[in-house]
Amino acid sequence: MKRISKKAGLPPGTLVHIGEKKTEEVRINLIDYDEGHFQETEIETVEECFPFKDKPSVTWINIDGLHQVDVIERLGTHFDIHPLVLEDIMHTGQRPKTEDFEEYIFLVLKILYYDEKAHQVKAEQVSLVLGSNFLISFQEQEGDVFSAVRDRIRNGKGRIRKAGSDYLAYALMDAIVDQYFIILETFGEKIESTEEELLSNPRQQTLDSIHAMKREMIFFRKQVWPLREVVGGLARGESSLISEPTEIYLRDVYDHTIQVADTIESLRDVLSGMLDIYLSTISNKMNEVMKVLTIIATIFIPLTFIAGVYGMNFKYMPELEWHWGYYMVWSVMIVVVLSLVSYFKRKRWL
Amino acid sequence: MKRISKKAGLPPGTLVHIGEKKTEEVRINLIDYDEGHFQETEIETVEECFPFKDKPSVTWINIDGLHQVDVIERLGTHFDIHPLVLEDIMHTGQRPKTEDFEEYIFLVLKILYYDEKAHQVKAEQVSLVLGSNFLISFQEQEGDVFSAVRDRIRNGKGRIRKAGSDYLAYALMDAIVDQYFIILETFGEKIESTEEELLSNPRQQTLDSIHAMKREMIFFRKQVWPLREVVGGLARGESSLISEPTEIYLRDVYDHTIQVADTIESLRDVLSGMLDIYLSTISNKMNEVMKVLTIIATIFIPLTFIAGVYGMNFKYMPELEWHWGYYMVWSVMIVVVLSLVSYFKRKRWL
Amino acid sequence: MKRISKKAGLPPGTLVHIGEKKTEEVRINLIDYDEGHFQETEIETVEECFPFKDKPSVTWINIDGLHQVDVIERLGTHFDIHPLVLEDIMHTGQRPKTEDFEEYIFLVLKILYYDEKAHQVKAEQVSLVLGSNFLISFQEQEGDVFSAVRDRIRNGKGRIRKAGSDYLAYALMDAIVDQYFIILETFGEKIESTEEELLSNPRQQTLDSIHAMKREMIFFRKQVWPLREVVGGLARGESSLISEPTEIYLRDVYDHTIQVADTIESLRDVLSGMLDIYLSTISNKMNEVMKVLTIIATIFIPLTFIAGVYGMNFKYMPELEWHWGYYMVWSVMIVVVLSLVSYFKRKRWL
Amino acid sequence: MKRISKKAGLPPGTLVHIGEKKTEEVRINLIDYDEGHFQETEIETVEECFPFKDKPSVTWINIDGLHQVDVIERLGTHFDIHPLVLEDIMHTGQRPKTEDFEEYIFLVLKILYYDEKAHQVKAEQVSLVLGSNFLISFQEQEGDVFSAVRDRIRNGKGRIRKAGSDYLAYALMDAIVDQYFIILETFGEKIESTEEELLSNPRQQTLDSIHAMKREMIFFRKQVWPLREVVGGLARGESSLISEPTEIYLRDVYDHTIQVADTIESLRDVLSGMLDIYLSTISNKMNEVMKVLTIIATIFIPLTFIAGVYGMNFKYMPELEWHWGYYMVWSVMIVVVLSLVSYFKRKRWL
Amino acid sequence: MKRISKKAGLPPGTLVHIGEKKTEEVRINLIDYDEGHFQETEIETVEECFPFKDKPSVTWINIDGLHQVDVIERLGTHFDIHPLVLEDIMHTGQRPKTEDFEEYIFLVLKILYYDEKAHQVKAEQVSLVLGSNFLISFQEQEGDVFSAVRDRIRNGKGRIRKAGSDYLAYALMDAIVDQYFIILETFGEKIESTEEELLSNPRQQTLDSIHAMKREMIFFRKQVWPLREVVGGLARGESSLISEPTEIYLRDVYDHTIQVADTIESLRDVLSGMLDIYLSTISNKMNEVMKVLTIIATIFIPLTFIAGVYGMNFKYMPELEWHWGYYMVWSVMIVVVLSLVSYFKRKRWL
Repeated sequence: MKRISKKAGLPPGTLVHIGEKKTEEVRINLIDYDEGHFQETEIETVEECFPFKDKPSVTWINIDGLHQVDVIERLGTHFDIHPLVLEDIMHTGQRPKTEDFEEYIFLVLKILYYDEKAHQVKAEQVSLVLGSNFLISFQEQEGDVFSAVRDRIRNGKGRIRKAGSDYLAYALMDAIVDQYFIILETFGEKIESTEEELLSNPRQQTLDSIHAMKREMIFFRKQVWPLREVVGGLARGESSLISEPTEIYLRDVYDHTIQVADTIESLRDVLSGMLDIYLSTISNKMNEVMKVLTIIATIFIPLTFIAGVYGMNFKYMPELEWHWGYYMVWSVMIVVVLSLVSYFKRKRWL
Repeated sequence: MKRISKKAGLPPGTLVHIGEKKTEEVRINLIDYDEGHFQETEIETVEECFPFKDKPSVTWINIDGLHQVDVIERLGTHFDIHPLVLEDIMHTGQRPKTEDFEEYIFLVLKILYYDEKAHQVKAEQVSLVLGSNFLISFQEQEGDVFSAVRDRIRNGKGRIRKAGSDYLAYALMDAIVDQYFIILETFGEKIESTEEELLSNPRQQTLDSIHAMKREMIFFRKQVWPLREVVGGLARGESSLISEPTEIYLRDVYDHTIQVADTIESLRDVLSGMLDIYLSTISNKMNEVMKVLTIIATIFIPLTFIAGVYGMNFKYMPELEWHWGYYMVWSVMIVVVLSLVSYFKRKRWL
Repeated sequence: MKRISKKAGLPPGTLVHIGEKKTEEVRINLIDYDEGHFQETEIETVEECFPFKDKPSVTWINIDGLHQVDVIERLGTHFDIHPLVLEDIMHTGQRPKTEDFEEYIFLVLKILYYDEKAHQVKAEQVSLVLGSNFLISFQEQEGDVFSAVRDRIRNGKGRIRKAGSDYLAYALMDAIVDQYFIILETFGEKIESTEEELLSNPRQQTLDSIHAMKREMIFFRKQVWPLREVVGGLARGESSLISEPTEIYLRDVYDHTIQVADTIESLRDVLSGMLDIYLSTISNKMNEVMKVLTIIATIFIPLTFIAGVYGMNFKYMPELEWHWGYYMVWSVMIVVVLSLVSYFKRKRWL
Repeated sequence: MKRISKKAGLPPGTLVHIGEKKTEEVRINLIDYDEGHFQETEIETVEECFPFKDKPSVTWINIDGLHQVDVIERLGTHFDIHPLVLEDIMHTGQRPKTEDFEEYIFLVLKILYYDEKAHQVKAEQVSLVLGSNFLISFQEQEGDVFSAVRDRIRNGKGRIRKAGSDYLAYALMDAIVDQYFIILETFGEKIESTEEELLSNPRQQTLDSIHAMKREMIFFRKQVWPLREVVGGLARGESSLISEPTEIYLRDVYDHTIQVADTIESLRDVLSGMLDIYLSTISNKMNEVMKVLTIIATIFIPLTFIAGVYGMNFKYMPELEWHWGYYMVWSVMIVVVLSLVSYFKRKRWL
Repeated sequence: MKRISKKAGLPPGTLVHIGEKKTEEVRINLIDYDEGHFQETEIETVEECFPFKDKPSVTWINIDGLHQVDVIERLGTHFDIHPLVLEDIMHTGQRPKTEDFEEYIFLVLKILYYDEKAHQVKAEQVSLVLGSNFLISFQEQEGDVFSAVRDRIRNGKGRIRKAGSDYLAYALMDAIVDQYFIILETFGEKIESTEEELLSNPRQQTLDSIHAMKREMIFFRKQVWPLREVVGGLARGESSLISEPTEIYLRDVYDHTIQVADTIESLRDVLSGMLDIYLSTISNKMNEVMKVLTIIATIFIPLTFIAGVYGMNFKYMPELEWHWGYYMVWSVMIVVVLSLVSYFKRKRWL
């Protein structure tokens, strides 16, 4: 949970960066293209973007780093973005959502990546402002999720150069959701190896790691569920900024998010099953331990008693004087052992 | 649960204060403002408010303390408020709800705060009556949740002075929901510290505190869930008293309530996970205890039996006479111990 | 479950009283009123009611006792009530429901009361037939739930004398739902006292009473849930017999039923939490018992073995001859005890 | 699960009897009636029914036994029934469903009865084909569920002779649902007697019978849930073959199915509660057993050790020589017992 | 989970085969038929199919093997299939779904079969592209699920030769769903045999196999649930490519999928019940073991103590000198045993 309380009491639309500051500098990258033309610029001051607003070609402005209020404010003012949208962009604790302002669509998405060191899924917030001929994307830090899309634009591979800004937005969403599959595969492998451990040698660590993965799955699911509605809404063509051919592509992303959600549910089921297996394994072990204790104890306790009886020091104990007394006691003991063993056998404890 | 039975059998619309009396005196504070004008008055008799009803500027009447029937009745009569609404205002056991009476909207909300002494989340009921140019708010006691809003009006910061009474209602709701985030952060921290305790040294108190937090979460959730519908309904523009620009702001509050609800669900999941971990830790400890008992008992019980045998006082026991008898018994015992230990090792109990 | 099988095979509309016969005689009470006029009569033969059918004033006919087929049949025929409705009135195992026959609305409700002797919530069925200027109510026995309403009509207190039969129906529903709150308060207190017992001295009875209360809650909930739909449907103004001002009042009752349903859910959550606490308390106790057993056994079993060794009667046991042998054995024993105690301390079992 | 695989690969509409063959011969019974006229015939060859198709009076053809393909095929052809409907009639593994073919409505229903020998609820499939002036019913075997309806037609009791084929269909559904109540009562009684056993003397059989009843309830519920939709759809007047007055009667059946479903849920809740009580009773007994073991063991283990010490045969053991040594040991033992007992008392184990 | 990550970053519509390569060669089989005409060809190069596109007779092109990009691409280009559809066809990790492209309907289905060796349900993806007079089906490998349909076309059995391509699509779906019933029967039998084992001799393997079957059921369900929507959507007649008579047949398939889903839920309930029974059986056994231990221990521990007392070597122990001392000790022991046994009897532990 992000420190939302920082903002409590401030008037709405006040720009405050909420979330971890993941990058030092704010980097702005601008790509302007259409079918025949391609231009890529690393931008120093935000004002350099302004002329592109009214050009008919598609302009993609990508901002890495959300902590500089003035950058986002100036951009927002020029592109006529509602102050609440700017506030949401700077506040990284949003749920995935979409809002249609007629002139532009505002989208909040989550890039997920698996942090190998912390053994945790981490989320990074990406906000998109999609206008009729521009797309502004806001990321918390530089990342390589979008680089394949960038390459496709540079090389003019696929439909992307022929299509509009809505197709670009689709391409970015597609890249984000593809990333989810990669994480799911990582998890799938971890679950498989944990499962082997579970069957061969279940330990406390096995249990801990099942619990930890369950928690990661809850986190993952929380990020993916609202995305379904977001992509589903766009794919149903509720906005005039999304052209019909792009809707088919968005339906494809929608199918993917459903597949992701489905896979998460399956993995959760698998993890729950593993938990059940762990618990029943442990309880079986416990039962076995108890049985061994019971068998040893119930066999030897009566024998020890018998030995104790003939260890008494009474003056008049006829058996002690008998010549075969000692051997008779052994016989009695053997009979006791045999009848107990056969009793246990009958009860299927042995 | 409030003592609702006090009212059973009375005709509807009878004004009875139900709930704790949290303040001695009823305080009425009136703020009247528009873009160019600001006036704040502490009011003695309720009649002083009446002239403001028909002034075009926005009037905010805030009443702290709900136990004086006549104050609420006179106000209600002058502002044409339905008797059932007045009854609900005085009855602090309401769920958050909204009712549209065309002339005005009636809103019931809950301010939540964390009572450090009782380690409990406490709720205070706030009722709003929103007319076209006035807003009457009823609180159980003086509080500082609304003071930031009051300051913004005084200083003319943000949009508030330019906007109507609907924006004022929004600002109050926003302040209330912001307060929820602060409580959630408190809980987040408590959960984190409890989690550390759980992993390092789980005790009965750890369990008690997990149970207590779960209960608080159920209470919290019960307050927040109906709020979603309330704010959602207003944001969908179902009432003519809410202007369109304000709807965008209400959608923002709506997003926040969903975030709150989401976070509550996450924390509940975390708490359930902690409970599972506690239980499996305890059951693991128990298993360990059982194993130690079993190992000690199963090793020594046979040995004690052997010693018992040679403690018998039979006259004719050849082994007793043997010169190396004593040492042979020791050898037998050592063989027994070694074979048992290797058995346990094979079973992975050691 | 009522003995519904009594009716199996009979043609529909056959009048059979199903349920306990709770009163000996059938009592019919008739109240006829409008703003200026009030008349109350205890009626002998059902035909006395018939002239009131066409009077413009509001007529409330209340029947206590459902077992006399002919009374209900004659009334039904005169007031043109559908035979299936009459069948449902006599069959006390109905769920709360509403049915609109244009000419009249048929309502089935449940009065609940807490039977102190049986420690159970009991339900009594109330059926209302609401026409444009009359209301017929059928109860299983005389009760005092409606007496406050009757008093209000007699004294002309509140709106009731000015309003129509729909408001009277509302007043009765309101009285029934108010009764629910009283039961919930009784439960709230029982739960609180059980909770104290649970924390101070949990016993088998505590568990039994938690289970019993859970069951009562399931029963309560089953009665209240369908009521929500019933009142909600009426409050949405789906019938022409309900006037608009009464709808506002019905919305109030609707809010109350939701509050009741909500409180039931909360109490169920609390009871589930108590069950969890009981179980973990018991399992904690069990663990403590096991620990004590283990500690005592693991300390004394080796000592007893040592004592057993030197109780053997071998002729050649050098230690027995040593002068300090006895004291050395004691030393060995003390060392064993100390090392075991320190082991347990390290494992945090002591 | 019926052997559906028999049909895999066959073209749709192929008539194959799937299910147990419950009767040897196929019996066809024909009743033709209207207000003034009644005729009942036992039919030899299916062709005898054909003239009745176009008679304006209501014709009820009842077929007991589904295994003769040609009977059903010839009937189907003459009455213009879709081949898939005939296939469904012969396949007894259907869920309750309704299908409207404009000319006729096809209904699948389930008669349930309690098989005393197998202690199981068994289902028999009944298919109805309802035309404007005829009703064909298909049963797996002769049964007496419909005999009361037949008697009513014979005697002209109730509305049945005056109404059309839709009312006849209603009457059959009503008879089937009434049968459900009888089974529920049987279950109610079994549950009550099991509950008494549970509280007085819980045994393995008690648990088995709770599990068995839970399973029966799952089976029962599976039959009843789809029926709700079936009857609900007919009662909402979605078909032109159902006249408006009959809809009121169907709503009554609908209420009954909801009552049945409700009662099933209640019984399931009760059974779950009984399971909880069984488990906690068993675990309480276990705890008691453990306590007794612990108390006996922890009291006697130290005493046995003390006795063991003075059973050692060291030459130099001063206590053995003391005159009051024996009595002193007894005193020590008594002190040990008393202090242990008081410890247990303090811990509330005694 | 299939290796979806292979595709991450590629532009949409890039054809990559994802999934196991189950066959070496790609086989294309073409059937062209109408009421009077039938032609079946094994095709070498994909271009041979092209002339059939515009023939009015129904053409069924079946492709076994999905790994040759160029085959699918050339076919797709000629038949004007959207690149995303081709991508989905080659990607075998799809959920069952339907997409309507006006000119054709795209369907993804899953053939399930039970792999006897791996004791697992395996899924094979089948994609259908249904045009107005052609149907292209894509399978991962050759299989015999569709051979019955093929035979029906060859022999002109049933409606199939008279109907259009939509009926052909229905026939294939029907064949797939029939296959599900066969698997369910296999499971039904396995569950029955496991249940017998559970009641006669529950072992660890029994538990493992219950867990394994539960997992298979989760997998099965995941395949079947989306199919309901797919078939349901087609049966509701949402597409102009499906003729009305075929809709009736599709409703039949829809009923079957619901039956499958229902049966899966029932089997899951049965498996959960079996799990409960296993656990309670195990816990009952454990209790029995504990009781035996307790009874043996609590009987012999006091006796051993008594024997120990008279094994002490004190010089002055009067009892030892008594002539009947030994017999008196035996009497005391017998009294102890009898009173303990009667105590256990009273507690119902024996």
